[in-house]
Amino acid sequence: MSQASKTGHIVALDCMGGDLGPSEAIAAAALAIKEGVISPNDTLVLVGHEDNLRMLAMEHRGLKSPRVIFKHANSVVGSDDAPMTVLKSKRDSSMMVALEMLKAGEVEAVISTGNTKALVAAGTIKLRTMEGAERPSLAAIMPRKEGHFILLDVGANPEATPEQLVHNAILGSIYAQCSLGVSNPRVGLLTVGTEEGKGGVRINRTHQLLKALGSQINYVGPIEGFDVWGDSCDVVVTDGFTGNVILKTLEGLIYMLRDLIGSKVKRNPVYLAGGIAMFPLLRDLKGKLKPERYGGAPLLGLNGLVMKAHGSSNRQGIVSAIRLGLEALEHGAGKRMQDALVATNTIISQTPPEN
Amino acid sequence: MSQASKTGHIVALDCMGGDLGPSEAIAAAALAIKEGVISPNDTLVLVGHEDNLRMLAMEHRGLKSPRVIFKHANSVVGSDDAPMTVLKSKRDSSMMVALEMLKAGEVEAVISTGNTKALVAAGTIKLRTMEGAERPSLAAIMPRKEGHFILLDVGANPEATPEQLVHNAILGSIYAQCSLGVSNPRVGLLTVGTEEGKGGVRINRTHQLLKALGSQINYVGPIEGFDVWGDSCDVVVTDGFTGNVILKTLEGLIYMLRDLIGSKVKRNPVYLAGGIAMFPLLRDLKGKLKPERYGGAPLLGLNGLVMKAHGSSNRQGIVSAIRLGLEALEHGAGKRMQDALVATNTIISQTPPEN
Repeated sequence: MSQASKTGHIVALDCMGGDLGPSEAIAAAALAIKEGVISPNDTLVLVGHEDNLRMLAMEHRGLKSPRVIFKHANSVVGSDDAPMTVLKSKRDSSMMVALEMLKAGEVEAVISTGNTKALVAAGTIKLRTMEGAERPSLAAIMPRKEGHFILLDVGANPEATPEQLVHNAILGSIYAQCSLGVSNPRVGLLTVGTEEGKGGVRINRTHQLLKALGSQINYVGPIEGFDVWGDSCDVVVTDGFTGNVILKTLEGLIYMLRDLIGSKVKRNPVYLAGGIAMFPLLRDLKGKLKPERYGGAPLLGLNGLVMKAHGSSNRQGIVSAIRLGLEALEHGAGKRMQDALVATNTIISQTPPEN
Repeated sequence: MSQASKTGHIVALDCMGGDLGPSEAIAAAALAIKEGVISPNDTLVLVGHEDNLRMLAMEHRGLKSPRVIFKHANSVVGSDDAPMTVLKSKRDSSMMVALEMLKAGEVEAVISTGNTKALVAAGTIKLRTMEGAERPSLAAIMPRKEGHFILLDVGANPEATPEQLVHNAILGSIYAQCSLGVSNPRVGLLTVGTEEGKGGVRINRTHQLLKALGSQINYVGPIEGFDVWGDSCDVVVTDGFTGNVILKTLEGLIYMLRDLIGSKVKRNPVYLAGGIAMFPLLRDLKGKLKPERYGGAPLLGLNGLVMKAHGSSNRQGIVSAIRLGLEALEHGAGKRMQDALVATNTIISQTPPEN
């Protein structure tokens, strides 16, 4: 993750864990090369059942390239496999083999569509957290009225402490620089009331620590739920419980809206006429609000870059995750995050709680 | 709250705190009488600056009725007033005067569009929590694909303990019977993964306690964010932090969608034609998803019924809050909640934590 150079990067794609199966992962690999996401200096390692992958790859001329390497793995992590099962009995799975390569320094990043809980657990245990970080944090890119924002943590660490929330803020800020191209990202702390003293002891302490960081971070203060859609901040910090609930509630809402619009439009000829005229708009809206299109949420704070792509990702979603991973490598995100965490912890240790 | 009888109910409307001012509250009072929400046996107390209210009431013939009483209050709680300011320096405000009447037994319920934080704080301090309840809980009625569900707590108690989450479940279940007319409401516990052991210590203990309640509650287990929009449960239980963030995030999203649709439709003549044809559909959708239309969130767990209506409520929203309040009174919700809390606490005290 720290070896950004003009000689290119080497990344592993776990081809087996997605809902659409290895054929979609292989199609994504071909698309990534075709679109130049994998540049001539980069190398892509396709991890999974080798015979199977090689057969699927024959349909894509672009994959006959020295930039594409196959790495065999004997099993697959299922979408319902418990993390402990994966760690104990599926060491030969594509997810675990890819993580092992990352740990050994054979690749610089792993992209996986596999089971989130298993990926978080296996990634944390295999790679360990960066010096100064206690838990990893999963960072999603969310659409808003204009542009995007980073929401983290969306599920890696449900019960975050104030110190861990501050780490989320630091990691998210650096990730926003790499992925959104914002030079000095505005960071907001999600809470239930923006005056000081609202939101409980944990939020108050986090707020105090974020203020103490000074120029380390562009902290804009506490924000409320409706603020995230405007242009008030680029990074929204919360714990993995609240972040996950928001992400999934919104995802469910988008599907409900789509069904509601679809069923009403079909039932009524006037709506149908209108719907046909408005189809591109509805499609745009659906795309804009569909979280998995902004495919790829990095698991930040580990010794190595792990990108989680949505389980239902199609080839575009997987390519997007590969692109985001390469951008983070190119920006030297890992080294920068490590340095920032150490500096942050120094300030935290010098900031006693207010009473 | 416990005096449900055929002789009718007496409720107080705080007319001063809403964004649209006392004229909208007075119009709501007239509408409530016209629509029969306030039946011939009920009495409505209009609390606020009496001269002002009487002048506004002259425009509505229906308010010249012995069922309408005016109660003077000298000041108004502002939307930014801190709870402590209200409690100390605004005892003569319409909100505080209405709550004082409730405490004194002169009315059975208070409906207010005022500042939520002040209402929660003042309601809790004036009325005190029911025996066995430690904190109140704010319960919102949310739309879903078919019908509605109750989400609680949406902001009264941000850092709820397992016991307080169980109280939310019990209170929400009884409120769903009164307001949604569901005889045996299905109750789900919002978390980040539905297998046992996910979501942290607090959620695990809550899950254990809810299971221990047995036939006291129709507990369907842990649910995730996307489950709320389907038909899997009628009551979604969470803490006031997560609930408030969900409510406000969704509210913000609805406004963003409206703006997005509006601006795209205006800019493009094809969309405009389609938009005109689809206008009733878009309006329906907006209405379905606008939280304040389901006006009125009761502050459950207090010795007296306090209904919070959205600050921006129009007359329909206020009438909806009055209706929900009267339905709760008619169902004897207060007495039933009190009895259920006592029974619940007995079971909680007999259920040691699993290790």
